[in-house]
Amino acid sequence: MPNLVANRIQDVPKSFIREILKVAADPEIISFAGGLPNPKFFPVQEIKKATAKVLEASGQEILQYSTTEGYLPLRKYISQRYQQQGIEVTAEEVLITNGSQQGLDLIARTFLNEGDKVIIEKPGYLGAIQAFSIYQPQFYPIELQEDGIDISSLKKVIAKNDIKMFYGVPNFQNPSGITYSKDKRKKIAEILKGNNVIFVEDDPYGDLRFSGNHLPSMKKYLDQNLALLGSFSKIVAPGFRLGWVCLPKDKLDKVLVAKQAADLHSNYFTQRVLYQYLLDNDLDQHLEGIKTAYKEQKNTMVAMIKKYFPDGIGFTNPTGGMFLWVTLPQEISSLELFELAIKEKVAFVPGDPFYIDEKGKNTFRLNYSNVDQANIKKGIKRLAGVLKKIF
Amino acid sequence: MPNLVANRIQDVPKSFIREILKVAADPEIISFAGGLPNPKFFPVQEIKKATAKVLEASGQEILQYSTTEGYLPLRKYISQRYQQQGIEVTAEEVLITNGSQQGLDLIARTFLNEGDKVIIEKPGYLGAIQAFSIYQPQFYPIELQEDGIDISSLKKVIAKNDIKMFYGVPNFQNPSGITYSKDKRKKIAEILKGNNVIFVEDDPYGDLRFSGNHLPSMKKYLDQNLALLGSFSKIVAPGFRLGWVCLPKDKLDKVLVAKQAADLHSNYFTQRVLYQYLLDNDLDQHLEGIKTAYKEQKNTMVAMIKKYFPDGIGFTNPTGGMFLWVTLPQEISSLELFELAIKEKVAFVPGDPFYIDEKGKNTFRLNYSNVDQANIKKGIKRLAGVLKKIF
Repeated sequence: MPNLVANRIQDVPKSFIREILKVAADPEIISFAGGLPNPKFFPVQEIKKATAKVLEASGQEILQYSTTEGYLPLRKYISQRYQQQGIEVTAEEVLITNGSQQGLDLIARTFLNEGDKVIIEKPGYLGAIQAFSIYQPQFYPIELQEDGIDISSLKKVIAKNDIKMFYGVPNFQNPSGITYSKDKRKKIAEILKGNNVIFVEDDPYGDLRFSGNHLPSMKKYLDQNLALLGSFSKIVAPGFRLGWVCLPKDKLDKVLVAKQAADLHSNYFTQRVLYQYLLDNDLDQHLEGIKTAYKEQKNTMVAMIKKYFPDGIGFTNPTGGMFLWVTLPQEISSLELFELAIKEKVAFVPGDPFYIDEKGKNTFRLNYSNVDQANIKKGIKRLAGVLKKIF
Repeated sequence: MPNLVANRIQDVPKSFIREILKVAADPEIISFAGGLPNPKFFPVQEIKKATAKVLEASGQEILQYSTTEGYLPLRKYISQRYQQQGIEVTAEEVLITNGSQQGLDLIARTFLNEGDKVIIEKPGYLGAIQAFSIYQPQFYPIELQEDGIDISSLKKVIAKNDIKMFYGVPNFQNPSGITYSKDKRKKIAEILKGNNVIFVEDDPYGDLRFSGNHLPSMKKYLDQNLALLGSFSKIVAPGFRLGWVCLPKDKLDKVLVAKQAADLHSNYFTQRVLYQYLLDNDLDQHLEGIKTAYKEQKNTMVAMIKKYFPDGIGFTNPTGGMFLWVTLPQEISSLELFELAIKEKVAFVPGDPFYIDEKGKNTFRLNYSNVDQANIKKGIKRLAGVLKKIF
């Protein structure tokens, strides 16, 4: 039988993380491998009330087909939150998507031709690598430093190549936990201005800052060519699959064509439930609970790493988000470490899938949002024990 | 500023129907233009109960991330319904999608390379034309006859071209209301066998048969290369955006990669609510109510057309589904008729957007599912008045 599958599917990297999560599903394993928010903070009772209320008031309406753009009051809510932060976004510039992942797909679908050149962070977010790969671009990974991507590499790449898109996660990046400094945000904007590069600012974690000052969106510095992506997954509930894309109206109209062809519109029932929840509750107050817990969990993890890991291991110390990133001495493969760690009942994600062009890296990702204090302590000790064996 | 938009987006036909629906939104207009199920039959109270129940029992779980494949008990429910009809589908062969529209996108994304040859009915379903156009195939429209597509044309097209895919809606097709006879289903299968053509059987209306006998899915006659698409939109509620794709496991695994890149997974909260609803209620009994109403509405529409339309106008008389199709004498343009009809406060969808390669056709679509008896009578009289003026 001939191969019926389209070329684009053969270019998508396999989800290594899915495989790892299967291994890590053993209940005896303490897993830092996942990327899940802590379900303890899902507002179950509030969602229950909101659902009953909106079904009672508008049952027939919220179960019917709806518009591709999404529910207008929800789009207004999103734009108003940006306006409160000094970011100019109107409701007409917001499109509701099935989580940020669909935002990534729609942006790539709308703007990337095969072979178009896309800058991505190194290490980069796996979901973006997968979403973009479908459209067969050429990736240009640029090294992340402590305060954001390497500016001198960026200058060189931009000077030498006709770059179409820059994909970045300036706040608490996945997988590294790194945040771009204000200075780097400005410098990136200066370099990109006039170059017709579309900057895709993916910001699912921006509301999860637990220390330091809020930093402005890249939209402060770059306007016309900036797509800003957000999500309710990390701040309310991922099961809703609701995220958004903000773009100037003329470009968003094109994304709308892509969205209509992809699935007509996002789940309208859930949009209405979520909006009712947001109307009847204080999101900022809800976020305080999440941030307090994640901060404590991150602090515990960092303290344990400092206390128990052997010398010569680097790690990031994030000021928000859900992940931190460990760098081993160059000669140690995190894939090999993973095999040993699983035997000791502790799991993480080896760095490999976050790189486009290099394998067998000496890095790995740890998640702290969905593991409690006691297990963070126990799990990091186990991992330290494994590390000491190979050091 | 250079054009940043990808070529694929420029190939997607504009949604003419969206524009028409805007015109038809005037509350004084009786609109047969929509494609909506009747919201009177949405099980609002039952959904309310199901939501409360499942949030109470498993709140944290149903708001979390979930699997790309979809909720296994829901996939089992779908496969069991097929098995009851004698169609062999296992739960592992079912993928939950955001409505059938995403099923179309994922199938095209997984199997179509640019320039691949796709057979489509003439007139064809607009949503499929849009979904497929993103992947820039070459369409081969084949005329629909009263009992399905024209077999002799099909033979010729298959003999002369290396066809990759056949997209069809064998039950109560949108826009025509036409159903393939059993004989034609068998003949199509015979012609396709051994040709490595993927048959995409889109069946959102199959459960809405209100007269005559159920006809077997094409899956009875063709197996390995058949993708069967279904949806809860017309039988429970479209606001849920839940549909499915059935494919043999080896091919579904490829679609899974496409789905994961597109949006990770479908709304899990809603999958759980829907499953709870299906568990606690009798879907077949629910369907009886919808079918009885649609049958009466269709009968009224046909009776009024017979009574009031001028001679020389053809129309289909569907045995299920939501649409019927009108054919005017060749010299009359349904687009011009539309302009006149709007002035008389009655709307329909002109045939144009359902054709790939011809414009200004003498056909149009009427929806009867979402208009009550009184308005069907009034609306068809108005339309007859307009027709008489131009005859």
